[in-house]
Amino acid sequence: MSEITFRTAKREDLSTIVRMLAEDDLGSQREQYDEALPKAYYRAFEQIENDSNHELIVAELDGEVVGTLHLIFIPSISFQGGLRAQVESVRVGRVRRGQGIGRAMMKWALERAKGRGAHLVQLITTHKSRKDAHRFYERLGFEGSHLGMKLMLK
Amino acid sequence: MSEITFRTAKREDLSTIVRMLAEDDLGSQREQYDEALPKAYYRAFEQIENDSNHELIVAELDGEVVGTLHLIFIPSISFQGGLRAQVESVRVGRVRRGQGIGRAMMKWALERAKGRGAHLVQLITTHKSRKDAHRFYERLGFEGSHLGMKLMLK
Repeated sequence: MSEITFRTAKREDLSTIVRMLAEDDLGSQREQYDEALPKAYYRAFEQIENDSNHELIVAELDGEVVGTLHLIFIPSISFQGGLRAQVESVRVGRVRRGQGIGRAMMKWALERAKGRGAHLVQLITTHKSRKDAHRFYERLGFEGSHLGMKLMLK
Repeated sequence: MSEITFRTAKREDLSTIVRMLAEDDLGSQREQYDEALPKAYYRAFEQIENDSNHELIVAELDGEVVGTLHLIFIPSISFQGGLRAQVESVRVGRVRRGQGIGRAMMKWALERAKGRGAHLVQLITTHKSRKDAHRFYERLGFEGSHLGMKLMLK
């Protein structure tokens, strides 16, 4: 397999990112993927781009964007003022799944988090029923001994 | 009961906050609560204070700090560029537990998140064995249908 490379997402990648988020049973209900993306996506992109605690990443293979993840650095008082990293919105394009791209992306994210001095990486996976996703993260060293809770405000 | 009030934490509150974080089976292993706090706590406090996406909050009752929580706003591409809120480091001082302070704090945080335009609030609770904590959050409307995963880097 060719080598996967990683870079910060550019504005031009946004529609590909949204397409990947929408290529998902849950995502298809909550994203709006059109040729002309709703402006709210661009507003969020700008906030992320201008905040050094955020890294919106794309993975490329043979010059094509095949995956995305959002890495967030969270300064915290706990753990003796320890920096934590959080991973959100991990997606691999539908036609590229099962090729180890997700694993390469997460391994990259763990190295990046370590490189920026984070002492832990945390994530909230989608519904508990997704056993395959949990095994995927457990194989990377994550422990699923916590409960992720969400409350929709709107 | 007197009214609980909420405000942004000041530098002078930091030792009280760390004491509350340490008054906990898990926290006692990972915090270092001394008269002279390690500098790393102050560094983290400054980062939090200077970042408008972070609100380190203390709850006061009769002029005394009785609880703390850390509210984080996370811009995100997903959910159509929706802003999410995350709650971390929720603690009530040991002698003040069981008086409804935690519930008042969380209700305040939910309103605050709504006021700043977040569409969801998320949190990762400590170990799955803490059924009382889960019931506490479920009563507030949180759904525990997700798995929280963590990986310690050091």
